[in-house]
Amino acid sequence: MTFPKAIEINEEGPREGFQIEKKHYPLADRAELVDALSETGLSKIQVASLVSPKAVPTMADASELFAAIKRKPGVAYTSLYLNIKGFERSRSLDTVDTEGRIHFYTTDRFALQNNNRPAEQMRDDQLAMIDLCVDYGVPLEGAYIMTAFGCNLTGEVPISAVTDLAVWTAEQCRARHMPIPAIVLADTVGWASPNEVKRRVNAVRDAVPEARIGLHLHDTRGLGIANVYAALEEGVDLFEGSVAGLGGCPFAGHGDAMAAGNVATEEIVFLAHELGSRQA
Amino acid sequence: MTFPKAIEINEEGPREGFQIEKKHYPLADRAELVDALSETGLSKIQVASLVSPKAVPTMADASELFAAIKRKPGVAYTSLYLNIKGFERSRSLDTVDTEGRIHFYTTDRFALQNNNRPAEQMRDDQLAMIDLCVDYGVPLEGAYIMTAFGCNLTGEVPISAVTDLAVWTAEQCRARHMPIPAIVLADTVGWASPNEVKRRVNAVRDAVPEARIGLHLHDTRGLGIANVYAALEEGVDLFEGSVAGLGGCPFAGHGDAMAAGNVATEEIVFLAHELGSRQA
Repeated sequence: MTFPKAIEINEEGPREGFQIEKKHYPLADRAELVDALSETGLSKIQVASLVSPKAVPTMADASELFAAIKRKPGVAYTSLYLNIKGFERSRSLDTVDTEGRIHFYTTDRFALQNNNRPAEQMRDDQLAMIDLCVDYGVPLEGAYIMTAFGCNLTGEVPISAVTDLAVWTAEQCRARHMPIPAIVLADTVGWASPNEVKRRVNAVRDAVPEARIGLHLHDTRGLGIANVYAALEEGVDLFEGSVAGLGGCPFAGHGDAMAAGNVATEEIVFLAHELGSRQA
Repeated sequence: MTFPKAIEINEEGPREGFQIEKKHYPLADRAELVDALSETGLSKIQVASLVSPKAVPTMADASELFAAIKRKPGVAYTSLYLNIKGFERSRSLDTVDTEGRIHFYTTDRFALQNNNRPAEQMRDDQLAMIDLCVDYGVPLEGAYIMTAFGCNLTGEVPISAVTDLAVWTAEQCRARHMPIPAIVLADTVGWASPNEVKRRVNAVRDAVPEARIGLHLHDTRGLGIANVYAALEEGVDLFEGSVAGLGGCPFAGHGDAMAAGNVATEEIVFLAHELGSRQA
């Protein structure tokens, strides 16, 4: 087994953990959570969404939240955005560390529900984002393929739907002489199993060998940490987690239950430590 | 990967789930839980402990519980016992399906705390149990090695402590021309990690190649289902689970928190199904 020597974690709890809540938690409490996370050794914390407050009302005060946190040197404080307006808003705030990100869907129904456009249109929209990254000199860090393991609205997602998007991304980057970003497979609605993690990681790796692969995993059906382990066995070294497993997608079609939480950051860290250091 | 085609699960929720509770739940409710479990397809349900009611007061009405359940044909209703007195009591109740079981500890401190004798004395006590199984014609089904991954009271447990007990069991059985029972590694206090599962399963398999290997896993630190996955990757096909993850050992040295729950039976089943049937 070739486990990675080190892994990188993007902490998403402050964003993903609160977007699903009906209650609007006090800004000071959310800032305190971010500040506490800054002290744990995390190097990247996704603080909030810069998406329409109509869609996600709990993120309406995102810019105030960014202004309220105590920035710790060495920690990047990032935002989620899903279109150019959000990207520009991120760049306009000097309290936000703007990441170059592109986002894809594997199914039209979820793309329409989460982003109000079909999957192919969403994909083509990313060309403008890629070009803006070039123009602004913002490194394109991640290509996020949502519902990469299955979709509650339409069911199974073929592996080719995932690899096609990875290949498309690689081709766009090669044409622009840009580094290929990390291809992040998001199990937005908790369909992944350990074997599917291995199959899809290897399929993407075969399709785009030079790309780093990351995983954004939910724990909807209790397999979250087993999926992390399967990914580590394949050498994956980039994970998104959420402190205490907070979170879930509000638009994932789980009914009132919405999507149960993300994989807990501290459990990813514990597992990684155990794999590297346990001796008997 | 060679996953087992089928796995066997011993459901321990009614026993392990309630021994840890301070509250004494009504007998009728516990019987109803067992009856509901009987309808799920489980073929073996551990209903109660036949241990000293002084040690585990919630099990004082174990024989009444066995009498109250609706026995479903094809389901074995078993008990936990840790000494000959409990074995004889199990045999004396015609409502109990008595399993031949032997039990070991890897550390003196936990053996003294859980069974009031040092580990080596506990081991030698099992000779009488083996002979009783022979005398009564009760098949010896399981050899349970407790704290097989680590001990909260003494720390790391060397692999040799586990393999020595497996080899001792095999030698006793060979000398009596008995089949070797399943060697069940119990992570009594939640120390296992996926790699340790693989290492210890393979070490026991190397030491006693003809033995079936089973796992009794707790989810104390969130790695339970990852440990199941690692075991399945090694071909392990025998697991003990607890419905909804109820349970924990009352004497495990976790302080007031005791040992957080077992691996949930339904999550083991879901994972096994996913590994066998997912296609895309």
